[in-house]
Amino acid sequence: MRSYEIAVVPGDGIGREVMPQALRVLDRVGAEHGFEMRFDHFDWSCETYRKTGRMMPADGIERLRDHDSILLGAVGFPGVPDHISLWGLLIPIRREFDQYVSLRPVRLLPGLTPPVRGHAPGDIDFWVVRENTEGEYSRLGGRQGEGTEHETVLQVSSFTRRATDRILRYAFDFSRTLNRNRLTLATKSNGIYHSMPYWDERFAQISAEYPDVETEKEHIDILCAKFVMRPQNFDVVVGSNLFGDILSDLGPGVTGTIGVAPSANINPERDHPSMFEPVHGSAPDIAGKGIANPIGQIWSAAMMLDHLGEAEAGAHVMRAVESVLGSDGAPSTPDIGGRAGTEDLGSAIVDAL
Amino acid sequence: MRSYEIAVVPGDGIGREVMPQALRVLDRVGAEHGFEMRFDHFDWSCETYRKTGRMMPADGIERLRDHDSILLGAVGFPGVPDHISLWGLLIPIRREFDQYVSLRPVRLLPGLTPPVRGHAPGDIDFWVVRENTEGEYSRLGGRQGEGTEHETVLQVSSFTRRATDRILRYAFDFSRTLNRNRLTLATKSNGIYHSMPYWDERFAQISAEYPDVETEKEHIDILCAKFVMRPQNFDVVVGSNLFGDILSDLGPGVTGTIGVAPSANINPERDHPSMFEPVHGSAPDIAGKGIANPIGQIWSAAMMLDHLGEAEAGAHVMRAVESVLGSDGAPSTPDIGGRAGTEDLGSAIVDAL
Ligand SMILES: CC(C)[C@H](C(=O)O)[C@@H](O)C(=O)O
Ligand SMILES: CC(C)[C@H](C(=O)O)[C@@H](O)C(=O)O
Repeated sequence: MRSYEIAVVPGDGIGREVMPQALRVLDRVGAEHGFEMRFDHFDWSCETYRKTGRMMPADGIERLRDHDSILLGAVGFPGVPDHISLWGLLIPIRREFDQYVSLRPVRLLPGLTPPVRGHAPGDIDFWVVRENTEGEYSRLGGRQGEGTEHETVLQVSSFTRRATDRILRYAFDFSRTLNRNRLTLATKSNGIYHSMPYWDERFAQISAEYPDVETEKEHIDILCAKFVMRPQNFDVVVGSNLFGDILSDLGPGVTGTIGVAPSANINPERDHPSMFEPVHGSAPDIAGKGIANPIGQIWSAAMMLDHLGEAEAGAHVMRAVESVLGSDGAPSTPDIGGRAGTEDLGSAIVDAL
Repeated sequence: MRSYEIAVVPGDGIGREVMPQALRVLDRVGAEHGFEMRFDHFDWSCETYRKTGRMMPADGIERLRDHDSILLGAVGFPGVPDHISLWGLLIPIRREFDQYVSLRPVRLLPGLTPPVRGHAPGDIDFWVVRENTEGEYSRLGGRQGEGTEHETVLQVSSFTRRATDRILRYAFDFSRTLNRNRLTLATKSNGIYHSMPYWDERFAQISAEYPDVETEKEHIDILCAKFVMRPQNFDVVVGSNLFGDILSDLGPGVTGTIGVAPSANINPERDHPSMFEPVHGSAPDIAGKGIANPIGQIWSAAMMLDHLGEAEAGAHVMRAVESVLGSDGAPSTPDIGGRAGTEDLGSAIVDAL
């Protein structure tokens, strides 16, 4: 029997509540499709930080390395500053394993009522391709004149040709496989003087190698407005770490909830494990209530199955998700207009498999 | 008779088309309210750049200095890279005149059909307060290994305590004058390691001086999603130069069009002239067609009247705008669902005064 070693890191807050539902789904779909999932649990979180002063042990990365994939919940909780928790767990995994592609679908699923009018399922259906290893997410910089009136904080973003080109090429290649003809670059070259003109330049250069892919360039401000006004117009949108982050929360917001949105942190060369996690965070406001939507985590697990070569199983999971969402009277969590709990919705999806 | 010297810079693209409508409105409302507007025209644009190699003359700033206010259209046009045109005209004016507050209303006007469902005019009504002089909009940085595989671009954002504190204080004070109790900070302290934790820190510190103002802090990614999902929940949102830019395009996008959105670049101490401009850009795609919505420019002119102390005249302009938008059969431009031209809509507003 095919078998996969999965590192499971539920993390904080609702990460701990949605993860068990994804594991149930994986167990069930594995049984149906003839493979086995072996889950290796890593209980690393802000709680760990409070106890040990670290989000994960010093050899944390090494302990994850030999797994086929990593399934992550959410990281961050009040009491530990966000930059400490995230730079202690999520961000180092993305970087150490060179998961340079963050791939995030934006899709209006059946049964969801989007806040925007006039859209049916299928009609909002695009992808955000986000650079995931450098850029605006940076610890370069610091503070001078600390504590004085003259205090100044410098924040340095660094963009290498290597990382910029590889994400752009990934986006062009990905546009081709989708057979969709438009790739949109998120930029802000009118305001951000060095880095964004550089993105424009590399985009123009690389697009010459892909004459069959139609391109457009939008400044991030108006691009965000267009996500709301005309979400049906996008196929693939590529952007820097920060811009991709913004667009991949906004896109699901336009479809009604970020509770269902998944993401894949991919190392395309497969030199290291890739990581799959919902787009939502640990949601301290609803943590502990058992009402978080597990679909973001479950869809992330489906993306993991695709990556592991179990595409049929991944598609099966998504059919189950869509059939539950689309059927009257199926349980739904508060974010999608219902009153059901995390576990009820998870059970309905397991049953639909 | 009271009289005001206004520097008029139409700029590029649709800036040249919407500006005349705002000037007609100002002339008319001045006549009604007993003041005179003296317009001093500055024809600075990408055309100027092509002819002279500069967006404005070397003494451009000096030539604007003695005016009571500046009314600007839009800057930037294909053929001149955006970072050249904007850093040659718009951005230096904001900085040289220390217009450190960018104040941008987001309001669902009558007669507009927003892309989001379930909102009536009045119910989306908030303000974005944007830091307007430093931060991510920066020429600090540069390129190394140019043209090689190892090319690296550093982009340095700089945040001073002075500029951070003064915009935060402005936002707190402004929240108070509105008698609205919630101020939202846009942050991204989980990813951007130095600057955004600094914003969080200053916000927490200054909020202690304003115990009557309720505060919340949202990461920019989820904040953008919330703008779409629950725009009625915001009162005042304060953010850095980049985050304020993004939010002040997204907000109007949620109300249906950025064509109506205005902005004020304010020097609160009145040491220098303030500048008023629509949020939209030069829109090369529709430039020359005479179909741009002039309301963004006209509303900006109304904000200018407020700033000049002609608040009654400003309110009068907004009543005229709202009555035209709200009346059946009044001309509307394509962005708000009609087929009228810029001038028709401008005339209707002039007539309504
Ligand atoms: C044109 C551009 C530089 C400008 C900005 O980003 O500040 C515009 O988008 C705005 O919001 O006024
Ligand atoms: C938690 C945070 C650091 C993270 C990010 O911004 O990358 C999250 O928002 C995401 O999008 O995965």
